[in-house]
Amino acid sequence: MSLVKIDTRFTKGFFSESELQTELQAASKARETLRTKSGKGNDFLGWLDLPSKTDAELLNKIKNTTERLTKISEFLVVVGIGGSYLGAKAVIEAGISPFQGFKENEKNSAKILYAGHHIDSDYHSELLSFLNTKEFSIIVISKSGTTTEPALAFRSLLTLLEKKYGKDKTKDRVVSVTDANKGALKKLSTEYGFETYVIADDVGGRFSVFTPVGLLPIACAGLDIVSLIAGAKEMETNVSEESDPKKNLSCYYASVRNLLYKKGKKTEILVNYNPRLIFVTEWWKQLFGESEGKEKKGIFPAGVNFTTDLHSLGQYIQDGERNLFETILKVTRPKTESIIQEFSGDPDGLNYLAGKSVSHVNSKAIEATCLAHYEGGVPQIEIEIPELNMKTLGAILFMFEYACGISGYMLDVNPFDQPGVEDYKNNMFALLGKKGYEKKKEEVEAKLNSL
Amino acid sequence: MSLVKIDTRFTKGFFSESELQTELQAASKARETLRTKSGKGNDFLGWLDLPSKTDAELLNKIKNTTERLTKISEFLVVVGIGGSYLGAKAVIEAGISPFQGFKENEKNSAKILYAGHHIDSDYHSELLSFLNTKEFSIIVISKSGTTTEPALAFRSLLTLLEKKYGKDKTKDRVVSVTDANKGALKKLSTEYGFETYVIADDVGGRFSVFTPVGLLPIACAGLDIVSLIAGAKEMETNVSEESDPKKNLSCYYASVRNLLYKKGKKTEILVNYNPRLIFVTEWWKQLFGESEGKEKKGIFPAGVNFTTDLHSLGQYIQDGERNLFETILKVTRPKTESIIQEFSGDPDGLNYLAGKSVSHVNSKAIEATCLAHYEGGVPQIEIEIPELNMKTLGAILFMFEYACGISGYMLDVNPFDQPGVEDYKNNMFALLGKKGYEKKKEEVEAKLNSL
Repeated sequence: MSLVKIDTRFTKGFFSESELQTELQAASKARETLRTKSGKGNDFLGWLDLPSKTDAELLNKIKNTTERLTKISEFLVVVGIGGSYLGAKAVIEAGISPFQGFKENEKNSAKILYAGHHIDSDYHSELLSFLNTKEFSIIVISKSGTTTEPALAFRSLLTLLEKKYGKDKTKDRVVSVTDANKGALKKLSTEYGFETYVIADDVGGRFSVFTPVGLLPIACAGLDIVSLIAGAKEMETNVSEESDPKKNLSCYYASVRNLLYKKGKKTEILVNYNPRLIFVTEWWKQLFGESEGKEKKGIFPAGVNFTTDLHSLGQYIQDGERNLFETILKVTRPKTESIIQEFSGDPDGLNYLAGKSVSHVNSKAIEATCLAHYEGGVPQIEIEIPELNMKTLGAILFMFEYACGISGYMLDVNPFDQPGVEDYKNNMFALLGKKGYEKKKEEVEAKLNSL
Repeated sequence: MSLVKIDTRFTKGFFSESELQTELQAASKARETLRTKSGKGNDFLGWLDLPSKTDAELLNKIKNTTERLTKISEFLVVVGIGGSYLGAKAVIEAGISPFQGFKENEKNSAKILYAGHHIDSDYHSELLSFLNTKEFSIIVISKSGTTTEPALAFRSLLTLLEKKYGKDKTKDRVVSVTDANKGALKKLSTEYGFETYVIADDVGGRFSVFTPVGLLPIACAGLDIVSLIAGAKEMETNVSEESDPKKNLSCYYASVRNLLYKKGKKTEILVNYNPRLIFVTEWWKQLFGESEGKEKKGIFPAGVNFTTDLHSLGQYIQDGERNLFETILKVTRPKTESIIQEFSGDPDGLNYLAGKSVSHVNSKAIEATCLAHYEGGVPQIEIEIPELNMKTLGAILFMFEYACGISGYMLDVNPFDQPGVEDYKNNMFALLGKKGYEKKKEEVEAKLNSL
């Protein structure tokens, strides 16, 4: 697997070779459980071969939708929460320039906005008022169509579309990604005549980036989903075919992180040195936090953005509680090399770097930080990415998904459910007075009053 | 103190009243140490009365600079790292619309960009290429002027300004915030004739938001710094004059969080339900992480953005390791109320909410989540903010700063230094071949080779 490498030199001394061997064997076993679909949550394993089974028909359909929507829309609003937007946002933020928002759209691309991922009143008022004078369309993503946050946002956005364009033309400005047959959004899509894409029954939200849930918004942002899938496919081959757990990237990553967890390292910090990766971190936090945070166990996933956070959480990582480890996304080559120039008189004392590239300085900062944190008592896993592009992004996302399945089985939880998410929802439905929750409402209010 | 309230009902049962009393007394003592400037790091307490001593002269100077810079600049690049940009960014993101970037600037405001807060080659290349055709100016913030990240960015941005506008006009497009007398940036500012603002010797970066470091960029974003200071001043009065630690917001917050830490709650998650507060969380993480993460102790500061992360880390918080507590920024009223409309046929099943406001739903989501997490074993501190505006922002930022001083003393660390930040820097200087680091270079390389 040439796209990504894992280096664990900065774990030396934190565990023995025989402890690692034990963990690698456990990872092999967990991988077999995953491959043979014989473990917990095995009705949610449709993502295992998504990259290799993505067909030309789907890619073509997405291409056509993208051309159609971006021709009539300066802005595209992705309506979805959790796994319904995080995968797309992770890839889009990693793929487009941070200054793209200030520029004219290139051909076959639109500016992507998000809605329905929270219930902030001001955000949604401001979004509606902003879009009132803009050409926009909507991609609405929801299996059921009744999840409170996206459903509320979609209501008001759909109303705005109808007001602006009339009901007839509105149907051309909404694409839904939803269940194949049932549910509120499916029904509404049929009534209105929205173009629709299918969310498969056996793919959970946080594993859905390589389905239309992720692919359609990514394509509409002007990014190359064919390369994204190609990278994911190359990784799929490695992790599904390589039986040596030390050469299998997902097995190896899962082994080392679980071993560190057993050693009392309760928090894993995903580190990047590239601001474009901030939402890859958010996606990773969802993937591992929601998959493993169960039964009073699981590694707590956190993130930092270096070098900026070296002047922030860096102090804590260097000298605070020693219950941390780091996993570093280390991009080796930038897209553009930029050479540091001589500054006459050397007022800032940086002329010793003149002629060197900025990425050279970044790479030395990475090495310097790894060593400092290692000596401070923080073990680290380095994930080396030769260059940040759609292909390598596809590869690392799939590597993490597969590792998450393995890791969850090693922890002996069901990595594919999220029972804890229901607790707040049920309380919320009760407090909001939803039908059928009358008794729950009394209970919840009594509990709140007793505090 | 009417601007902010603290509610600890969701800590019931996690500690006894007598344990709290002990902690409150410790907080009182720590507050005395802070007030009398008799503790560790007492040469860095210039921030203690910044709000009340901010004078009209400074505010006027900032007003004039703002008018001058925004008249000639569509974009303003803030060059700084850590505390030199996080305070400004926290307030700016909380204060302006998330869609402002797509709009024309209002009078006396510019779009704020950031640079020199990391060493990502692509970001800086893209920034330079983007600014090449734009009207822009720079606010460069650095005590010394030699910190690697901002100094490198400033070199290339200054070169671009000179190329675009000529050396003569460049001096009008740079404002520096730096040491009063010494250092590379001070010297350069004198040579070029840049307008300058002073970073006081006794105010550390993470406590600098109420100095020109924060105030100047915030004003240039078009925000009302007079209200910001007024809110901070009201809070200053409470926390510096109120001697009952239960009524003193900073004492109370510091007491409860330290007590929870003693009970094994090693991670504090700052929770918001408003996307505008995401960078307040980043600022808070720096404030507490860099102040307390020392001597192998300190609470690990993390953040989540709800309700979106309820479909992500929410699962972990509900059911994962029970070593967490949450502190919730609970904004009671939105700027704009938005009423949920009836949807004919009720396809999404949300008509039971018709006629209710979006903020009502958000407030119920908050209550529902607090109860669910509490019952899951996660204690919580609620910080109630009646409305998100410059005044309440000033108040909560100052409350946190003062609480951080108290909390650090309760933990028996120096909350005002950051010795761990030097470790990566020294390794980096060595690896980059900086003069004077020859011996260190040999050491570092030998260590790396041994791994």
